[in-house]
Amino acid sequence: MSSHSKPFGEFDLIERFFKTAANSLRTNANQAITLGIGDDCALIKPRAVEEIAITSDMLVEGRHFFAGANPELLGRKALAVNLSDLAAMGARPIGFTLAIALPTADNTWLEAFSKGLFAMAEEYSCPLIGGDTTAGPLTISITAFGALPKGEAIRRSGAKPEDDIWVSGTVGDARLALAALRHEITLSSEDLQQIEHRMHNPTPRIELGMQLRNIASSALDVSDGLLGDLSHILKQSQVDAEIQLDKLPKTDTLQKQDLQIQNQFAACGGDDYEICFTASASQRDNIQAISKSIGLPLTIIGKTVPKKDDAVKVYLLHESGALLSDAEAAPFLKSFDHFAS
Amino acid sequence: MSSHSKPFGEFDLIERFFKTAANSLRTNANQAITLGIGDDCALIKPRAVEEIAITSDMLVEGRHFFAGANPELLGRKALAVNLSDLAAMGARPIGFTLAIALPTADNTWLEAFSKGLFAMAEEYSCPLIGGDTTAGPLTISITAFGALPKGEAIRRSGAKPEDDIWVSGTVGDARLALAALRHEITLSSEDLQQIEHRMHNPTPRIELGMQLRNIASSALDVSDGLLGDLSHILKQSQVDAEIQLDKLPKTDTLQKQDLQIQNQFAACGGDDYEICFTASASQRDNIQAISKSIGLPLTIIGKTVPKKDDAVKVYLLHESGALLSDAEAAPFLKSFDHFAS
Repeated sequence: MSSHSKPFGEFDLIERFFKTAANSLRTNANQAITLGIGDDCALIKPRAVEEIAITSDMLVEGRHFFAGANPELLGRKALAVNLSDLAAMGARPIGFTLAIALPTADNTWLEAFSKGLFAMAEEYSCPLIGGDTTAGPLTISITAFGALPKGEAIRRSGAKPEDDIWVSGTVGDARLALAALRHEITLSSEDLQQIEHRMHNPTPRIELGMQLRNIASSALDVSDGLLGDLSHILKQSQVDAEIQLDKLPKTDTLQKQDLQIQNQFAACGGDDYEICFTASASQRDNIQAISKSIGLPLTIIGKTVPKKDDAVKVYLLHESGALLSDAEAAPFLKSFDHFAS
Repeated sequence: MSSHSKPFGEFDLIERFFKTAANSLRTNANQAITLGIGDDCALIKPRAVEEIAITSDMLVEGRHFFAGANPELLGRKALAVNLSDLAAMGARPIGFTLAIALPTADNTWLEAFSKGLFAMAEEYSCPLIGGDTTAGPLTISITAFGALPKGEAIRRSGAKPEDDIWVSGTVGDARLALAALRHEITLSSEDLQQIEHRMHNPTPRIELGMQLRNIASSALDVSDGLLGDLSHILKQSQVDAEIQLDKLPKTDTLQKQDLQIQNQFAACGGDDYEICFTASASQRDNIQAISKSIGLPLTIIGKTVPKKDDAVKVYLLHESGALLSDAEAAPFLKSFDHFAS
């Protein structure tokens, strides 16, 4: 919580800037925060029956976002991707720290960035409680904290054979936006706008995660691509999976594309920030009720099956239930080491 | 806890590398960690009577360390500067997250860096519990967690007028090393080696911080320079201070320099990672006993006095007790806005 270098005026200003914004938010802050910004450490005090969930993500210019990216949306997304990890465990957000390196003290950029950041923080009752500011290549490192009842965290390791595999919302949209921005495909300006929103402004599924406690057997957030991320659940739970490609939930915009592209983007696209989870078939009614109550589509895309070999496998199925051929499955192999076909 | 970009082989390797090292350490891990690396979030469960202290620091190549810096020492220091913040609150380390951007996957560098990092982690029983790895300009962002009995955190705001002002160890050494490395001064190779060690391998004063709970009235760690950092205590506690420059604890090596340089480096140097704290004069015997029990010199360098004006002030005193003249005090003004002379 200190600069570890000689104080330099412009960055003192930045620090004060974030501090002021953070303090105005703290008036509504979570009771778990007993000390916010301004000391060597922040202090949090969970309730006696609670655990603290912790997640860290680092966003680097040129890798996770384009140079010149809209700073307001970047501020939103930087926090959203961390909240998405909290959601995947079923945690309620309680606060976050921000360490940020900035090449210059650009007031216009900072105002827009912090506007987005603090808007997201306020929407999810997740105040800034500390951090660090320095000069350097634009790098945003956030660590977010959530609370959840002891023992109720939804881990990746809890899936059982014959569980349903679910995914929230739609997948493949951010990948479609990326393809459009790279001029690999062409979209109408209306479609592009809608789909870019999904890429730049993901919605952390906090309410879903909290409602899935004691219902989902395992969960994670989809950030690197559905099938690749699903493999983490399979490895940690030691089960295989059958996935029906035609069941993957897709926006109308994605459905206008060639079927091969639809499936590729939905199955392997990345940057979706939806929740993939497993649950016993006996939970279907409960899960549909959750979907209705929070207004978010939840879709069964396949099921877990007993593991056959040492390495876990995903079996990709046609609508008919037949396995995809080697040639058909090959495009999906890129994001997953252990496919069966 | 995910890469938010397409997985790329070499960085998967790095992630596995940290994971393996972290897991080998977790066997001795703190009971507060209920889930370590490998899920969307780590989980910690403090004891019912405890609070969690949280601190984040970001180190950027070229600003906080030289390009080509010894990676093993860098690994140690990256964690040490965070542990130093925990020490200043009186917290016992329980774990940390690491978000790191690396320009390339250099195995030799990584092995040395993580050797230093995990050695420091083991010395202070502070396991790696999660994080993020990405490509980018070399940037190390650590968030560290500590536990302490509820209400016993040593804050910056607790100093009372007429408290003693103490500092641990010696100050000014890292600044002397920097001057030598910049060829501003010349040291014998023996002196340089000893003093460089203080710069590159600071010792977080964890044991001191824990023992000062309920004894110190305020504390912080000295990272930006003693007087500048002390001003944070003064502002938050709303007191002024009298500091006797001749009392600042200095190594023999620093004492070989010109007196003006000695005082300048000791008072304003930075990168010391000692603890500056205040305590009632009635605590002197207790504090001397702590000093003896942990083998760390603790020195009274002045006292707090009632605040006279709106802005807090530091009064710099000669050995005789006389105030420094304006001209004498001027060199110290650089790191402190509100000096009185």
